[in-house]
Amino acid sequence: MNGKLFLVPVSIGDSRAQDELAPMVINTICSLRNFIVENEKSARRFLSSIMKSEDLDSSNFYILNKHTRASDIHSLLAPMKAGLDAGLLSEAGSPCIADPGSELVAMASREAISVKALPGPSSILLALMASGMNGQRFYFNGYLPADRANREKALKSLEKRSLKEKSAELFIETPYRNASIKESACKVLRPETILCAAMGLLTKEEKIIIKPISEWKNTELKAKIPCVFVMSGMADFSGF
Amino acid sequence: MNGKLFLVPVSIGDSRAQDELAPMVINTICSLRNFIVENEKSARRFLSSIMKSEDLDSSNFYILNKHTRASDIHSLLAPMKAGLDAGLLSEAGSPCIADPGSELVAMASREAISVKALPGPSSILLALMASGMNGQRFYFNGYLPADRANREKALKSLEKRSLKEKSAELFIETPYRNASIKESACKVLRPETILCAAMGLLTKEEKIIIKPISEWKNTELKAKIPCVFVMSGMADFSGF
Repeated sequence: MNGKLFLVPVSIGDSRAQDELAPMVINTICSLRNFIVENEKSARRFLSSIMKSEDLDSSNFYILNKHTRASDIHSLLAPMKAGLDAGLLSEAGSPCIADPGSELVAMASREAISVKALPGPSSILLALMASGMNGQRFYFNGYLPADRANREKALKSLEKRSLKEKSAELFIETPYRNASIKESACKVLRPETILCAAMGLLTKEEKIIIKPISEWKNTELKAKIPCVFVMSGMADFSGF
Repeated sequence: MNGKLFLVPVSIGDSRAQDELAPMVINTICSLRNFIVENEKSARRFLSSIMKSEDLDSSNFYILNKHTRASDIHSLLAPMKAGLDAGLLSEAGSPCIADPGSELVAMASREAISVKALPGPSSILLALMASGMNGQRFYFNGYLPADRANREKALKSLEKRSLKEKSAELFIETPYRNASIKESACKVLRPETILCAAMGLLTKEEKIIIKPISEWKNTELKAKIPCVFVMSGMADFSGF
């Protein structure tokens, strides 16, 4: 019988993993000895905070990141085909959300390997909740284009859709581009459109700024802190 | 100084709340004495499983549901304006996601009441993770229209967008309409479009079915179990 593929959340804040993750999740992680991870070093660091060192020493690590070739992903199913359970971890938060990993899950389900998603923190969901924007219709758009002209075009089209569908529009950016997002937003969006920047969620630096574009011009956005953006074209932005 | 508004997740599975929620979340809940809830009876049932009975007895409950008038929502901020912390709970999972509640959060942030979202289970996120579909671009569409013609039109338009944008398209339905969704999907979607039905997540009845439409025709979908649907127009549905 095939082993299971567990989709394992990793803590995102600066609390201890034992405080930020549910006991049922911690217990499941501690029962696993096969881990598919983006980066072995940081995965070991996380796991060492919850697993006994002898259990960690007897664990196997397999790498899955954006450089993994599609043809190599299939071989990561080997432990499960040999009847062993495995855990898929991302660098932070929940695997398969805003990160590679879904391709492995798709392959697993095609091969009748049972997939079990475990609950945990997601900065995208926390940002949406804290934004007060429409949680009954929300669109996660990943990263916006890196070049200015295309980024501005993308922002305009998200704003247009938000106005039409009353949707909350979410996107992320690498921290060093936070300021560019703000500049582009101030340049091309309507003054009454609301932009939320949710920074450093679950850390001591957590800060959530929610303002119409007209008030963003004079607002500083830290450059080195991970940020989830949520946008709504509606002044009454909760949508209902 | 204003009190804080905590966005409090509620367990969705059939494990004990202490197992399904993180200790930092349980501790925060137990420190609160003001709760804004959809339904007092079920909120008390949940809270009684984690709080001391004397603490629960000294707690205040305020109702916020789809019948609450916009003009009455503002008065729910009173405890926080009096300097007390309050917790917003939904019926299951994370507040403000696929439920009313975001309007209160929007009002709170306008009045400089600080909002703190706590991590917890979300059936939408768990369904997306387990579906193997594109977690780098996903759209949550809420409930589809109840009448058949409009539901079919909506399904076609989600399929069209998924093909164009490689997006995973999520939607929910009241359990007694699960079969209607399946029938409409089989009628109007392309045979190679993939539909995932994630049922009873985190319960003993958890079941995840992922199949192309061509194979859904002969698949029974239980009528009484909450279900999150995830759809992708791409045969290679993980998107990358």
